[in-house]
Amino acid sequence: MKQSEYAIAQGILFTDMYQLTMAQLYYHMNLHEKEALFDHFFRSYPDYGHHQAGYCISAGLEWLLDWMRHAHVRDDDVAYLRTLKGQGGKPLFSEDFLGWIRANGAFDGITMRAIPEGRVIHAQEPVTVVQGPLAMAQLLESPLLNQLNYQILIATKAAQIREVSRGQMVLEFGMRRGPGMGANAGARAALIGGADFTSNTGVSLAMGYPPRGTHGHSMVQVFMALGGSELDAFRAYADLYPDDCLLLVDTINTLDSGIPNAIRVFEELRRKGHAPVGIRLDSGDLAYLAIQAARMLDDAGFPGTRIVLSNQLDELNIWQIVTQIQEEAPRYGVDPDHLLKRLVYGVGTRLITSAGSGALDGVYKLVAMDNGGVWAPAIKISDTPDKAPNPGHKHLWRLYDRFGKATADVLSLEDEDPCEMAEILLHHPSDHLKFRLLRCDELSEIEPLLVDVLRQGRLVGELPDIEAMRAKRRADVDRLHPGVRRMMNPHIYHVSLTDRLWKYKQTLIGSVLGSDG
Amino acid sequence: MKQSEYAIAQGILFTDMYQLTMAQLYYHMNLHEKEALFDHFFRSYPDYGHHQAGYCISAGLEWLLDWMRHAHVRDDDVAYLRTLKGQGGKPLFSEDFLGWIRANGAFDGITMRAIPEGRVIHAQEPVTVVQGPLAMAQLLESPLLNQLNYQILIATKAAQIREVSRGQMVLEFGMRRGPGMGANAGARAALIGGADFTSNTGVSLAMGYPPRGTHGHSMVQVFMALGGSELDAFRAYADLYPDDCLLLVDTINTLDSGIPNAIRVFEELRRKGHAPVGIRLDSGDLAYLAIQAARMLDDAGFPGTRIVLSNQLDELNIWQIVTQIQEEAPRYGVDPDHLLKRLVYGVGTRLITSAGSGALDGVYKLVAMDNGGVWAPAIKISDTPDKAPNPGHKHLWRLYDRFGKATADVLSLEDEDPCEMAEILLHHPSDHLKFRLLRCDELSEIEPLLVDVLRQGRLVGELPDIEAMRAKRRADVDRLHPGVRRMMNPHIYHVSLTDRLWKYKQTLIGSVLGSDG
Repeated sequence: MKQSEYAIAQGILFTDMYQLTMAQLYYHMNLHEKEALFDHFFRSYPDYGHHQAGYCISAGLEWLLDWMRHAHVRDDDVAYLRTLKGQGGKPLFSEDFLGWIRANGAFDGITMRAIPEGRVIHAQEPVTVVQGPLAMAQLLESPLLNQLNYQILIATKAAQIREVSRGQMVLEFGMRRGPGMGANAGARAALIGGADFTSNTGVSLAMGYPPRGTHGHSMVQVFMALGGSELDAFRAYADLYPDDCLLLVDTINTLDSGIPNAIRVFEELRRKGHAPVGIRLDSGDLAYLAIQAARMLDDAGFPGTRIVLSNQLDELNIWQIVTQIQEEAPRYGVDPDHLLKRLVYGVGTRLITSAGSGALDGVYKLVAMDNGGVWAPAIKISDTPDKAPNPGHKHLWRLYDRFGKATADVLSLEDEDPCEMAEILLHHPSDHLKFRLLRCDELSEIEPLLVDVLRQGRLVGELPDIEAMRAKRRADVDRLHPGVRRMMNPHIYHVSLTDRLWKYKQTLIGSVLGSDG
Repeated sequence: MKQSEYAIAQGILFTDMYQLTMAQLYYHMNLHEKEALFDHFFRSYPDYGHHQAGYCISAGLEWLLDWMRHAHVRDDDVAYLRTLKGQGGKPLFSEDFLGWIRANGAFDGITMRAIPEGRVIHAQEPVTVVQGPLAMAQLLESPLLNQLNYQILIATKAAQIREVSRGQMVLEFGMRRGPGMGANAGARAALIGGADFTSNTGVSLAMGYPPRGTHGHSMVQVFMALGGSELDAFRAYADLYPDDCLLLVDTINTLDSGIPNAIRVFEELRRKGHAPVGIRLDSGDLAYLAIQAARMLDDAGFPGTRIVLSNQLDELNIWQIVTQIQEEAPRYGVDPDHLLKRLVYGVGTRLITSAGSGALDGVYKLVAMDNGGVWAPAIKISDTPDKAPNPGHKHLWRLYDRFGKATADVLSLEDEDPCEMAEILLHHPSDHLKFRLLRCDELSEIEPLLVDVLRQGRLVGELPDIEAMRAKRRADVDRLHPGVRRMMNPHIYHVSLTDRLWKYKQTLIGSVLGSDG
């Protein structure tokens, strides 16, 4: 494939075919420039099989906006679309539609609100709200879902790993098992959600973040193949990187060869006035080997060196390692707390693929159409009325209880402000038997969650940088109740509708079921 | 992020940081331009939990080669690398190394052999063999694994879905849940492995393949929000696409509204001389609804229309649907065979994420180093000697039995040719108790699998186009024994070592264990 073809595949035609055929339909019905309103939300939290996420982390918005700013229909795209034929052999797209989309196929009519990256977000609430000319807002569905769903998924997995790793450093190592160029988005999302650094050099540099790494088995193998030894390889590495000496000790045998050789090299470094950084364990029983490594390093006078663990780590494996170290370390005279504090977790495959739950079920649903200056709500019942989206323009609020912890997110009609209510009746989005009454004097704060991002295609204000996203994530996670944060059967965080929005939705569902049922 | 930063993130720095620090080490040891030999292979077939793949499909090579042709170290990359500091605050990369990599940081010294895309491949055999200057062959590890692992994974999942879908059309619909821009690689791999078309417009057009699609719920919702009906939406669609009319019938109620409205529109189309294409079902009990849809369409005189099924489909769901239709259709007077033949499977999330097994465990291992004109084998024992790679330059052969079915793939030393052997002793790669003797007169064909792809960075011959890859995949799958193709506990296909290679490997392992153990 030529580079120009990759450009096409990453440009505005990075969308599903049916968006284009629907756009043409809207064009021919003269609906294409009518304003439409779409909500992007996910239906359920990632379920990893043995455990579930009780919250997600917003991610992907900046890259989506970058893509939107550059994506537009070019001559190459039109030339390709012109070649497509229908079943009857005739061109699928009319010349007048192609002319229109060549001139207007860009996202400069789009207005967007969104929950900023790094924030805690929940199922069933709008994370992104798109308003704009119907044809282009429709075309945006696939790329928006693609970019936001994946980054939210990975940021959320990183947050799971962050929870179980407590304050220890987490490194993202997943490129080699990551999904093609999607690995860049995955590494970025991992940093937002909880990884401290990534080994992905390009993304690190592009984001102004230093990458991290150690060395691989091949380095030791090279020396051995050329008649040298593991010790020779370690020495060469220590000579070149005397202040960054972190050695992978399992190429031959961890306890008999790798760690003793590392300690010899560390002693040589120390004599030259350098502080060795540590070792990496990449195979075997990581908890047991970490204890033995700690014992050997302590005995040699290197209690401050790091022990990096890698090899199929995820939140469950790390939990297991922590538990095993707590139980087993004292038997070998190793202080488990000290050992746990020197650990670094290198997490690869299972983070960048969100192992156990490889996709977020985010959707993008029409919730209103401009009908000659009046907004008409849109509804979809399907065979599952409880999946009907919440219609129309809405606000989204986060309510904090008297302890400062988030207790519910509430969707309201556009003209409602819970700050002005004495009490708030919270309805479950679909189950009419579930509701809850909150008095406003039980609340410490009411916070609007959706912020203006684009107005007619133009960026409103500054986007947060990666450090700000990470700080926001830490602050938001801190304000969750522990039950929502736990791994096994987390509490279901309430995402509710105000009484007026609930009634509006029910009336609308009733009218559709009545007229077409 | 600026577009130039995306370019950096997709360029030669799309690699793990430690490849660069190792490359600098090789540079300072004057090893960087020594020839090295790496094998890329995967250790095990995808295990989807309830079932396993018994074979994989090669995919990703052409895109990797495209990437390699364009990736090289540019001033921007060097400027970024120069900013990186070690723990001591000094620059991590020396100016002489940066100067060398600015001048030499490209893949024009790489020689590569590979199993072509579309072919059946197996665990433990080299899929790609890379020879070249150590520093650049090392740098290639991460991007090679990234691109090949993911495309093999998705092509293999597509092959699973292909098996269970028999001859029916399979459409790839996964972009919206796909991993960022990796969705393009996933769509391509799906086409190689067994999907007939993808909805991903950009990739389809870039590959010269027509995309496919239907329409979404939003189209019906738009009409309803503006005071119209599902029927109005269907009519508008049929007017614009009279020969491509495929209607999504579950926006309101499939049986009471969607299908009756579709039939009315189909009748109108028929009166105008057009043949309607069919309907799509996207929710509910798809097997039951397909039976009812078939009955209603048959009764209305449209027995030739397609029924497209979508919604979380994968190989198990499709198997379940086929089984349920076989059992349940006769009860409603519907011929199950006729119904199954009109089905089209739209497969999204679970294909593009390889649900159940989200990563292929492909690795890239040093197997030999040039030591002053003589190739020295490389070995890695680690704590698991049975994972030791097979050392040195090798050939790979596929042996076909007298029925023309593939019976084993065999790795041999470079100077061995099984065609010249009267009998072949096949060793299990690590278990010395497992071997098998094949007389060559029991074989109908012996085929070399690795072909020359790059010689010193230059493409050797033409790469197959997508149709050739698909044809190769069909032919290779046809030549597998049914036991290897089945979903549940597939037979383990033999990937074996010749007697000489086996003995060479054992000697080498023994020498390492002896000297360092």
